[in-house]
This record gives sequence, C-alpha cells and structure tokens, in this order.
Amino acid sequence: MQYVVVLSGGMDSATLLYDLHAQDARVRALSVNYGQRHVRELAAAAQPTTRLGVEHRIADLSALRPLLAGSSQTDDRVAVPEGHYAEASMRVTIVPNRNMILLAVAAAWAISMRSDAVAYAAHAGDHAVYPDCREEFVAALGEALRLADWHQVAILRPYVALTKADIVRRGTDLRVPYELTWSCYQGGRYHCGRCGTCVERREAFTLAGVPDPVPYEET
Amino acid sequence: MQYVVVLSGGMDSATLLYDLHAQDARVRALSVNYGQRHVRELAAAAQPTTRLGVEHRIADLSALRPLLAGSSQTDDRVAVPEGHYAEASMRVTIVPNRNMILLAVAAAWAISMRSDAVAYAAHAGDHAVYPDCREEFVAALGEALRLADWHQVAILRPYVALTKADIVRRGTDLRVPYELTWSCYQGGRYHCGRCGTCVERREAFTLAGVPDPVPYEET
Repeated sequence: MQYVVVLSGGMDSATLLYDLHAQDARVRALSVNYGQRHVRELAAAAQPTTRLGVEHRIADLSALRPLLAGSSQTDDRVAVPEGHYAEASMRVTIVPNRNMILLAVAAAWAISMRSDAVAYAAHAGDHAVYPDCREEFVAALGEALRLADWHQVAILRPYVALTKADIVRRGTDLRVPYELTWSCYQGGRYHCGRCGTCVERREAFTLAGVPDPVPYEET
Repeated sequence: MQYVVVLSGGMDSATLLYDLHAQDARVRALSVNYGQRHVRELAAAAQPTTRLGVEHRIADLSALRPLLAGSSQTDDRVAVPEGHYAEASMRVTIVPNRNMILLAVAAAWAISMRSDAVAYAAHAGDHAVYPDCREEFVAALGEALRLADWHQVAILRPYVALTKADIVRRGTDLRVPYELTWSCYQGGRYHCGRCGTCVERREAFTLAGVPDPVPYEET
C-alpha cells in the first residue's frame, strides 16, 4: 500500500506516520500552511519525517487565511478559547471546511502519485466538536473522491476508534518523538497548557500513564 | 440568496456571474491560482467582476502545482493536446482532484461569510471527460459539505442541463463581455484555436450563431 499521510505537526498524525511506516507501507507526508495561528506546528511536522526518511511536502496555501475568517485559528480578531475540548466555546476553533480542503489537496497529490489512500489521524475524541471528523463526513467525501477521478484513492482514518490516550500508548511503543510534536493552538514559544488542544493532550498523557515530554508555559 | 461563484476567467463562469448578478442575488466571486498553465485566465476573471462591482478574491494557491503532476495544465512535461474535447487524449488535461479543491475552498469562504451556496458553471458538455463535473460527484460532495460544518452551504450547478451553445445564447442576452474572457489551455498571447477548450468554445459560438469576439492565433 502507498499512503499520503496528512501531517499536522501534532501528536496524532506523527503517531500515524510512525505506525504506517512501521508496517512497511510506502508513506509520503503532506502538511499544509493554511494560515493557521499555530503555524509553528509545521516546523514540528518536518521533524519526524526527517527522522524516518519519509518524503514530506509542506504546501504554502497561506493565501487561504483571508477566506477563513471567524475562526480563532485563522482570524486574529478571535481569541483562542481556554478549557476543555467538548465545550461549546471550542466551536470558534473550527476552521471553516478545513478538513475538506486538507483531504482534497492530499487526495490530489495521492492521485498524481498513484497512491492508494490518504490517511489522517481523526480519533474518537474529535467527534463532539468537529463535524468534519465524523464517519458520515468521511464516507461522503470518500464517495465524492471515488467519483472524482479515474484513479481511485481511499480515505482512511485508522485511529477513528481510538482515544487520544490509546494513541499515546501506541506511539510510545513506536518510539514517536513526542518532544518534537506541537499541539498548542496559541502557537507561542511553549505549549500554553490551557487551550483546548493542550488540555486534551495533557489529559491523554495522564490517562496513558506516560510523561508528556514537552514543556508548558506555566511550569 | 448569497452566492460564492467559482470564477475561472472562462466564458461559462463569467456568464454565470452575470446571470446571478442580474437576478439580484448577493454574489461574491472566487478565483484560484492552482499553478495552471493558463494562469492568464485569472486576469480575465478580474474583468467582469470589476465591471459589475462584485467582490472578487484571487487566492494564490500556486504552491499546489508540484502536487498536481501528470496533467498538461500543471506539469510542463505534459503537452496540451489538440482536438475535440470528447477524445480520450483530453484526459491528460484533467488536473487531479481540481474541482474538489476549488469547491472546498469556495465552500470555506462561503461558510466564513455565511453565504447560502457555492455556484459553479459545470455544463452538459463537461461530463464526458471530467468525472468531477457529474451529478453524482456534486451530490456526494454536497452531502460531505452538509455534514462538515454547523453552517449549511449548498453546491449549485445552474447550467448543468445547458450546452455551451445555450450558455453563449444566455450570455449574449446578458451582455457578457466575452471579448474579455479566456478559455485557451495553452495560455499564450492569443487563443490557439486548436486545444480542446478552444475547439469547444468556437463550436459553441458557431452553434449559437454569435460571433466569437476573441482573436485566434491562426487568423
């Protein structure tokens, strides 16, 4: 199997990259600069691919930013909320139609390279806030993709049934360098420890019983 | 109704823009530089929007080009074929997953602006060569979009039952400035008259009984 992995720079997609690579799949990685506030995640994305010797492209689509107003991640007028992911306030972190854009671009590259599938690291904890991480969405998009081109590319979400703590456990076995990943939505010098992604990340490491190797601002 | 119109710079989408504008809809226009050989179509796209006073964005996503290898429109190693659109050789003009990318980006902006729909000018003649102009594709993508976000945006193809000659007739009534549109896939100084889009364009004007106002290379 040949895969294009959507690599954000966060811990989930880094784990997926290591996982597929360990399965002897031919893996390519794609990261996208869509003008995100936490653009430093892209520097983090480059670390595991270099370690593994995996082909990695970072597409500079930052011109998308002015089209993505209203989200805390792409609009400076909107503050990044603090607290737990499941809360309604986290909705402002949704980047309009982001996952469809990412998957459409990844699929384009996959078609171009005659890869078999696009893999991305949506997991069980994403569903409450992000409708575009849900099964029905991916099924519909996969169907559109099936109809879109003469070359067939599937969309796979290998972690869809896993919690983030499960992912930490798996990644620890795979020796994923979590110290090199970036999760925080604030995109500052250190992880803030208070935004939704930081809260979720810390909780996952705690539940997995594994120390989180990244430093946090407050500590 | 508020629309985002996907505007290529060609005659079909220019007609659609004039058409929706004439219906008193609130229209915005989006053009995308995806690294196309015929990038000069984007300068053409800016003309009708200026005339109508419609808000127009040109998103520079030209960094997509290296991900879209294999198409004559985004890969210099592949020549633009000549002849009639329906021929199998025209398949090399397909840009991998282009329409999904364009529609995903247009939908993102539509969501961000709380527009009701994305409209694009796929027509009856597109279907033979381009699978991503077909009904089933748009239905699946529309379903994905319905599931992707809390704000609902429809995908509309008002010209899906029209031939290109029908579009010329309608645009002539609407006084679309066809002399300012750009169709040719070669992207040279003048329309080449021989590539698939030029052949299709000339045929449409002939069938409609309207003179095509753009100059061709050979004449």
